[in-house]
Amino acid sequence: MVFTDIIEKKKNGLKLNQEELNFFIDGYVKGIIPDYQVSALLMAIVLKGMDEEETVALTSAMIDSGPRMDLSGIKGFKVDKHSTGGVGDDTTLLVAPLVAACGCKVAKMSGRGLGFTGGTLDKLESIPGFNVFFDNETFIKNVSKVGLSIIGQTQDLVPADKKLYALRDVTGTVQSLPLIASSIMSKKIAMGTDAVVLDVKTGNGALLPALKDSIKLADIMVRIGNAKGLKTAAVVTDMNQPLGNCIGNALSVEEAIHVLKDNIECDIKTVSLTLASKMLILGGICESDSEAMMMLEEKIASGQALVKLAQMIKNQGGDPNVVDDTSILPHAKEQISVCADSSGYVSEIITHEVGSAASLLGAGRMTKEDVIDPAVGIVIKKRLGDYVKKGEELAIFHVNDKKNFEEAVARFKKAYTISKVQPDELPLIYTVIEE
Amino acid sequence: MVFTDIIEKKKNGLKLNQEELNFFIDGYVKGIIPDYQVSALLMAIVLKGMDEEETVALTSAMIDSGPRMDLSGIKGFKVDKHSTGGVGDDTTLLVAPLVAACGCKVAKMSGRGLGFTGGTLDKLESIPGFNVFFDNETFIKNVSKVGLSIIGQTQDLVPADKKLYALRDVTGTVQSLPLIASSIMSKKIAMGTDAVVLDVKTGNGALLPALKDSIKLADIMVRIGNAKGLKTAAVVTDMNQPLGNCIGNALSVEEAIHVLKDNIECDIKTVSLTLASKMLILGGICESDSEAMMMLEEKIASGQALVKLAQMIKNQGGDPNVVDDTSILPHAKEQISVCADSSGYVSEIITHEVGSAASLLGAGRMTKEDVIDPAVGIVIKKRLGDYVKKGEELAIFHVNDKKNFEEAVARFKKAYTISKVQPDELPLIYTVIEE
Repeated sequence: MVFTDIIEKKKNGLKLNQEELNFFIDGYVKGIIPDYQVSALLMAIVLKGMDEEETVALTSAMIDSGPRMDLSGIKGFKVDKHSTGGVGDDTTLLVAPLVAACGCKVAKMSGRGLGFTGGTLDKLESIPGFNVFFDNETFIKNVSKVGLSIIGQTQDLVPADKKLYALRDVTGTVQSLPLIASSIMSKKIAMGTDAVVLDVKTGNGALLPALKDSIKLADIMVRIGNAKGLKTAAVVTDMNQPLGNCIGNALSVEEAIHVLKDNIECDIKTVSLTLASKMLILGGICESDSEAMMMLEEKIASGQALVKLAQMIKNQGGDPNVVDDTSILPHAKEQISVCADSSGYVSEIITHEVGSAASLLGAGRMTKEDVIDPAVGIVIKKRLGDYVKKGEELAIFHVNDKKNFEEAVARFKKAYTISKVQPDELPLIYTVIEE
Repeated sequence: MVFTDIIEKKKNGLKLNQEELNFFIDGYVKGIIPDYQVSALLMAIVLKGMDEEETVALTSAMIDSGPRMDLSGIKGFKVDKHSTGGVGDDTTLLVAPLVAACGCKVAKMSGRGLGFTGGTLDKLESIPGFNVFFDNETFIKNVSKVGLSIIGQTQDLVPADKKLYALRDVTGTVQSLPLIASSIMSKKIAMGTDAVVLDVKTGNGALLPALKDSIKLADIMVRIGNAKGLKTAAVVTDMNQPLGNCIGNALSVEEAIHVLKDNIECDIKTVSLTLASKMLILGGICESDSEAMMMLEEKIASGQALVKLAQMIKNQGGDPNVVDDTSILPHAKEQISVCADSSGYVSEIITHEVGSAASLLGAGRMTKEDVIDPAVGIVIKKRLGDYVKKGEELAIFHVNDKKNFEEAVARFKKAYTISKVQPDELPLIYTVIEE
């Protein structure tokens, strides 16, 4: 087999078979096929697409690039969740303890954030002492002991994805439905849980902004998972504004604790409970959404979910007192109000620009080498549809280093459109895709 | 400027401007932009295209990647020709001496063949003693002295093209109208002649087989040339069967000498005279095609064109007696007839497969490292529309090494379709594009 023939085939819009995709992934991981040939194929995939069978075959080839995790040492139903990523997205901090409190086992590997704000690992690391690096044996022991653990991805889980992702990141080939789907699903399948629930974001802060693309992505990922023996469901949720009001790392942890402790009704609770309820149904813990919702509400009201969060924190070296006293978390030196320049309704928020503003304060990474400041971030005071008066607070910026402060304020303000007409309310949950 | 933004722009089908294309070419030649990013952009260009303005801008950027040739030392009108390449295409060996005999100065740099059969340099090198490597000063002196010289491309002529072509060759990005046009025209413009005539092949042995693509390519190249101050015309000619009957290196030289010496009416003479007449008109030597044709016929009939060829051969170290005695050329050990398996009309010839058969005999290179055997090749006995009886000769194979002989015969026979109905005659010259 010659790799240029594979490139030519995809360039001409033809379908690649399992043998060709294995040749590609295996040759690339082994260093036989060079980056410059792979990036040409990736661009052809971006522009010519892949059908479902091809995407499943690509996912299979990627899974086979490394050993799968063996979670057989964990008793009970093992469930995972994944978000395609957005701004202010802290649902894992709610979903994992909630589902564990209901009796599922949550074994999750997370990534770090690049671009807008930190990833789940960055958020957890803002808790003093919290450790995200454990060997597989300890990870399995931790899940068995308290029902949940969230750690960093090990180096050998789908090595093809690591290599491909690094190349996609610098060759304009990130935004591709089959490439995104195979990247996510190869890792979820190799992870070895019994089920996964996917939170596929849609809107101007999502990887694929158009609703039809988000639904397509959700649909193909559910098909891939189920084709490969992983029970999979997906929820398409709104990312036309930040989820929750807190964008940052310690700020996100504080928000999650606040929701679990004080049982606040808010968008982030709604999305988290929707995801958690799908996990309970896939796990056979509940039979219906209403049953699951009741159980989850009870786990919040009784404080059991918060206890689970504290157990996980303790188990991973963090200070569990944080759930009672969030002043333990790092706090920024200054809190500065950012106010509206005119009166009217918030009619549009360019979400990724709000994320960029938080990154400029130090809450996220612009490059892989950047160091995150766990204390800084943005607390939003006005959301889509809210009325704001000129001079009234739009948000509070939590600031340590003022270097990029002015630019962050300018970007944040530019992201907000204030107009005379109240916009239509957007759905928070667009659709649920199950097998 | 960030290169990934340029990739994203082209991926989304947007137009790149001169500044962006300069950044790309300059950064690539300097080694700042890596191959893997460039190949992603090249694939996006292949699939999304470039408009005329962009293609001109890309050509400009490529020209600026190295110094231009300075041909000011040559008195008179300097003219160049270029063929997009095909099988059995020896027109340069006829056109160059013909045009020089009429008073134009032919200063030409040629390439070596890769794929089907050798390039012009390989053909010339089959003449004992012929040298294709001269420094610029000697090259200019040679053109001034005898009116023509054909040498190998110097390393510093459009370095961007060398680097890009090597990458395109291994990334499935050869077949692209803007990339082909900018590659050819950047070299022709940097060469510094006053005019160029392009022979754009069309049909199943051409780089772009479809007539509409060939016309588009011819059209854009004529526009680029004239936009950059190089008088340019193009002739779109047929490559649905080999041009001429001889495919090989010494065999091609022999055929060219035969046409000039014995004034044979054949397809290769017709195409050569059409190209040469356009060169004479661009050079102001003639005013009309009929005037040019008369002058060219006279240069053959009087033997002056053959004298010019002998002068060039002598000037470049070759044995000029070859024009009187082609037995000086290397000859293969065996001449083996390849015969028809059935009776009927030759209704189709898959030209590139005939080229591959000749390459298998050793007449061309499959990889850059292959060594060409100047003596071997194929002499065709039946052409499109000819009637052949079962067992009658289709071609004579000139063979030294029998290693790939059977495969060459099989490929050659498979390339010929023999059917009961005589096919319609194809045009030899499809169209001429002038400013």
